[in-house]
Amino acid sequence: MVSFTCDYNEGAHPAILERLVATNFCQEPGYGADCFTQSAKALIRKATGCPQAEVFLLTGGTQTNSTVIATMLKDFQGVVAATTGHIAVHEAGAVEYTGHKVLTIPQHQGKIWASELKAYLETFYADGSYDHMVFPGLVYISFPTEYGTIYSKQELTEIQAVCKEYSLPLFVDGARLGYGLMSPECDVTLQELAGLCEVFTIGGTKVGALCGEAVVFPSGKAPEHFFTMVKQHGALLAKGRLTGVQFETLFTDGLYLMIAQKAIDLAMQMKAMFVAKGYELFLDSPTNQQFVILPPETAKALEGKVKYEVWEHLPDGRTVVRFATSWATTLEQIDELAALLP
Amino acid sequence: MVSFTCDYNEGAHPAILERLVATNFCQEPGYGADCFTQSAKALIRKATGCPQAEVFLLTGGTQTNSTVIATMLKDFQGVVAATTGHIAVHEAGAVEYTGHKVLTIPQHQGKIWASELKAYLETFYADGSYDHMVFPGLVYISFPTEYGTIYSKQELTEIQAVCKEYSLPLFVDGARLGYGLMSPECDVTLQELAGLCEVFTIGGTKVGALCGEAVVFPSGKAPEHFFTMVKQHGALLAKGRLTGVQFETLFTDGLYLMIAQKAIDLAMQMKAMFVAKGYELFLDSPTNQQFVILPPETAKALEGKVKYEVWEHLPDGRTVVRFATSWATTLEQIDELAALLP
Amino acid sequence: MVSFTCDYNEGAHPAILERLVATNFCQEPGYGADCFTQSAKALIRKATGCPQAEVFLLTGGTQTNSTVIATMLKDFQGVVAATTGHIAVHEAGAVEYTGHKVLTIPQHQGKIWASELKAYLETFYADGSYDHMVFPGLVYISFPTEYGTIYSKQELTEIQAVCKEYSLPLFVDGARLGYGLMSPECDVTLQELAGLCEVFTIGGTKVGALCGEAVVFPSGKAPEHFFTMVKQHGALLAKGRLTGVQFETLFTDGLYLMIAQKAIDLAMQMKAMFVAKGYELFLDSPTNQQFVILPPETAKALEGKVKYEVWEHLPDGRTVVRFATSWATTLEQIDELAALLP
Amino acid sequence: MVSFTCDYNEGAHPAILERLVATNFCQEPGYGADCFTQSAKALIRKATGCPQAEVFLLTGGTQTNSTVIATMLKDFQGVVAATTGHIAVHEAGAVEYTGHKVLTIPQHQGKIWASELKAYLETFYADGSYDHMVFPGLVYISFPTEYGTIYSKQELTEIQAVCKEYSLPLFVDGARLGYGLMSPECDVTLQELAGLCEVFTIGGTKVGALCGEAVVFPSGKAPEHFFTMVKQHGALLAKGRLTGVQFETLFTDGLYLMIAQKAIDLAMQMKAMFVAKGYELFLDSPTNQQFVILPPETAKALEGKVKYEVWEHLPDGRTVVRFATSWATTLEQIDELAALLP
Repeated sequence: MVSFTCDYNEGAHPAILERLVATNFCQEPGYGADCFTQSAKALIRKATGCPQAEVFLLTGGTQTNSTVIATMLKDFQGVVAATTGHIAVHEAGAVEYTGHKVLTIPQHQGKIWASELKAYLETFYADGSYDHMVFPGLVYISFPTEYGTIYSKQELTEIQAVCKEYSLPLFVDGARLGYGLMSPECDVTLQELAGLCEVFTIGGTKVGALCGEAVVFPSGKAPEHFFTMVKQHGALLAKGRLTGVQFETLFTDGLYLMIAQKAIDLAMQMKAMFVAKGYELFLDSPTNQQFVILPPETAKALEGKVKYEVWEHLPDGRTVVRFATSWATTLEQIDELAALLP
Repeated sequence: MVSFTCDYNEGAHPAILERLVATNFCQEPGYGADCFTQSAKALIRKATGCPQAEVFLLTGGTQTNSTVIATMLKDFQGVVAATTGHIAVHEAGAVEYTGHKVLTIPQHQGKIWASELKAYLETFYADGSYDHMVFPGLVYISFPTEYGTIYSKQELTEIQAVCKEYSLPLFVDGARLGYGLMSPECDVTLQELAGLCEVFTIGGTKVGALCGEAVVFPSGKAPEHFFTMVKQHGALLAKGRLTGVQFETLFTDGLYLMIAQKAIDLAMQMKAMFVAKGYELFLDSPTNQQFVILPPETAKALEGKVKYEVWEHLPDGRTVVRFATSWATTLEQIDELAALLP
Repeated sequence: MVSFTCDYNEGAHPAILERLVATNFCQEPGYGADCFTQSAKALIRKATGCPQAEVFLLTGGTQTNSTVIATMLKDFQGVVAATTGHIAVHEAGAVEYTGHKVLTIPQHQGKIWASELKAYLETFYADGSYDHMVFPGLVYISFPTEYGTIYSKQELTEIQAVCKEYSLPLFVDGARLGYGLMSPECDVTLQELAGLCEVFTIGGTKVGALCGEAVVFPSGKAPEHFFTMVKQHGALLAKGRLTGVQFETLFTDGLYLMIAQKAIDLAMQMKAMFVAKGYELFLDSPTNQQFVILPPETAKALEGKVKYEVWEHLPDGRTVVRFATSWATTLEQIDELAALLP
Repeated sequence: MVSFTCDYNEGAHPAILERLVATNFCQEPGYGADCFTQSAKALIRKATGCPQAEVFLLTGGTQTNSTVIATMLKDFQGVVAATTGHIAVHEAGAVEYTGHKVLTIPQHQGKIWASELKAYLETFYADGSYDHMVFPGLVYISFPTEYGTIYSKQELTEIQAVCKEYSLPLFVDGARLGYGLMSPECDVTLQELAGLCEVFTIGGTKVGALCGEAVVFPSGKAPEHFFTMVKQHGALLAKGRLTGVQFETLFTDGLYLMIAQKAIDLAMQMKAMFVAKGYELFLDSPTNQQFVILPPETAKALEGKVKYEVWEHLPDGRTVVRFATSWATTLEQIDELAALLP
């Protein structure tokens, strides 16, 4: 049975495992002081075009989001996010557990609009009792979003402008960053993205690594003693080499973006295939997550043969489902799916 | 240059890497629902002799400690630990970050005494104003301790008896559990240990894994919705297979204890060698961490050739240092050290 | 200048001050062990018809809400509230500060609907990934609501039924409880309300006291060591007599409800007066908070002569404002307002 | 029966009650915007000789300590205190509840020594792994201490010097400040104290008020949006006039210090009386708390006639007890005690 359930169904890109094996007996210090982590950080600084960037390697997505958000906010602040933002819905209240509110604003296929962000902020400060309320202290967006959509350079620039007007740092959750950057619709480069926010993450787990998220502060302005707070959040690996080796590999010879490119190519083929067969898309995603509406007979036809993620049951009996590609997806798998679709 | 700095200087035991490579392309669900994690849990249940045990695989030590402690305590409770307990000193306040106090009692080469634990509890409840104080809600011990020492079965039984008298669960931090169990002085088995506490961990990171700590609730009484709280603490891996494969490997054919046995054998040889050469031990550790007092000339002789961890500077100019062995340590390395020692 | 800004513009009902003066030199123990607090608790048990109730006297509203909510929730749970609930908007994130999310559902003039609560809960448990989300653990409603509206007995019964179906305790924030109970539209008694929830508060601050909120657990099932957690939340007064004397006075000879009755009578007269003069009500509040839409010329006419609270600016230039009555409001003040209104 | 149990056995100084009655019907805005609070702040600024000071009026001691400490610390920091510091022992873990560790250093009759503070800080920064530990971020001392002792100007100056060397703000918990300042052994004035720390409190509850602690930032450098965080901590009174009127009264015509002076005079007479009768002092307290060692026969003689607080049971059968005086203590009560002592 083939699975398109998510982009973390397999292990790691083979190059990563090879490198883990090759470096296994090097004696290196712990907690990120190893040579692989140092090299990974240098490669990320180079790839992002930010020689002064501060880079930290953490383990998982929820962990990274709550660590970044908690350390960038002051006690009286919350983080602004789309109602569908991962931190607002599917992280088990990890942000609130650190004492901060997630302040939600409307979403449009997973994206926020600069105009609505501005309206929210204007309304907040126009309220005479705002000092009895949680102050907006950070803006969170995901790229791509939870619906596979991406922001254009223009949209990011507008959001950044609103953030600057209100002195709010912008945090881009790039758990699937590669898939966004390699999207045919993407008009922003990694270097440009780095210039459009105060902090962003480069997701490893969903783009070929076993685990690992790189946190990048492009201007080198990480919160004071961020290392200690990473430890406090339980996000510091004793064997930092595990993430070091992985990110070093991903950022050597452009592997990270190549992995993403392959997944995107297959996703686009998959989308074209669905459309050609007359399926309705739930939304037109330009990245590796494809949201399709399946009639009951298709669901039945795929049962026991193809796995996917159920997103939402529609009142008319059809189902919104997600098919995801990854570094490990093959053309054969897409063909297999095509052959099974009524 | 050879390093005895710690037991997490190298990568993973080769069997683990082999298994990661071998299983890499299996498509498995995320978040610990993969077959490797299920198998690892079953193997751990078997090895601990607890068919009803609930087992969870987390990533790192501090993370595991704070997640277990926070979820086992009620809001009005703190955790009792030795003043030298890892949670009390070297975890960046991770326990306090979750809202709970670490209540310290005296340590003796890293161990607490049942008698002093009892005295603390008696004094607490004898104090008329105890309801203005943090209630003891859990007892934390490490096995082996931060000083490499281990509790005897008798000592554990006595501590457990005091805990039961006060209805306090006992938590054994086994970040280096294997090295404790394989110590020549150890008179408790893994199965017996499981019967002497309410929750314990089986450390992977320091015993041959890339990362990973198994949390075992021997009686199957994990805190309600522990899974969700693991996520909330940022301790849930999307690719749960990473820890699943590792613990499955470690608990297949007794690898975990074999790894520990080898490190212990070399540590004992190292200790004998130091003693034979006339070095004073800071304490007589029966596990893989050896604490030796080095005179300045020895420190000088090893400079640039052998790495170790400095523990404490003595007023007389000598230094307490730690030499650790691990699964990766070789007899050649011990011989190399011996040859360099004046 | 007369003020209708809120119901905490004046000090305390004179009977309270008299009693504070009369008891001032009695030597009594601290922290709520004083005879006044004991007497107040007994009187509240009697008034609520709950001989087994556990009663605690805290100081302020936000403090009381966050203490009750934090101590009734488990770590993996959040509190369900209307989007306009006081805890969701105007308490500076006090609930999130304790680590818990406020899970909002739609509001209707400040009230939630049992049907929408049920729909939310059904949707939650129907979501396959609910264990990655914050579990609903408590339902919060205010009585009266932030818009002065009240729930009928039928509505409360329906909400309670949904709560019971999902084993969720119901918390009624009664910061203005008296004004709700004395409303001409109220069809529930204090005793009945006590039977319709697991915990509720009896607000003192806004109903004649200098400060103080009574927390009532009608069935006597307060969270374990609630006293200690009240202290931990900074909500325990050394001179517990301050709240003890006040609640003893308020619950002697029915003073609490008499105070509320008077404020309600004047509020109804005020509402009738506004309606008679052709003013549009923003909503038809049956309690002491009246929401009226003022045209600019009225705002101008009242400037410098009458104070009120601005609620919301309408696009058409008019303003939604709130006029509140209290124990201290007089008929003369209503007449003065009437005389000034164009 | 006469009670010397504590200094919060009675209500408020009569002048406070009179003023509460006199101002009761003034209509004033809530949350500290009332004229009484403004006046109280101005009077405190004047009394402390700090025209630029920021002053906030909170309700209780534990609440004030945890609010000040939590808002002055960064996430990676803890607060340094004596092992006997109130925050370390008798505040139910309120500081830890906000996520911060209390870092304890030795005490000497309740006081810390500048030399030991310095040694602690030197040791901390000399430890190679300090970034895995909780950073000292604030120093807390109480004046008078929990044992009634006070720091000399010289001692405070030395502590301040160490703090400045390590860029640590100093927080003086003045829950009983008046009794310290009026002690015959005190060589520091209120104005001088204000110059020796970054924040201090002026305790009202134990010095004649019903409740209330003034937080003073002498240089006007309160944490950003401190008001909002006071609300978040549940420490903001809707009727801010309650603390406003009280502190206005206490700081009019020197009432605060007069109240303290009277209690100190009687405490000194009491101490002289105990010494004259041959009783052993547990320690020679210069403030309103007197610690005396009672033999069993005395305890028996006072039973049912005089109340005091039991501090500690000595192995020899004697008991350390505390007798406290307050604004309400009378010479007749001291004489009554004297007459009863064997």
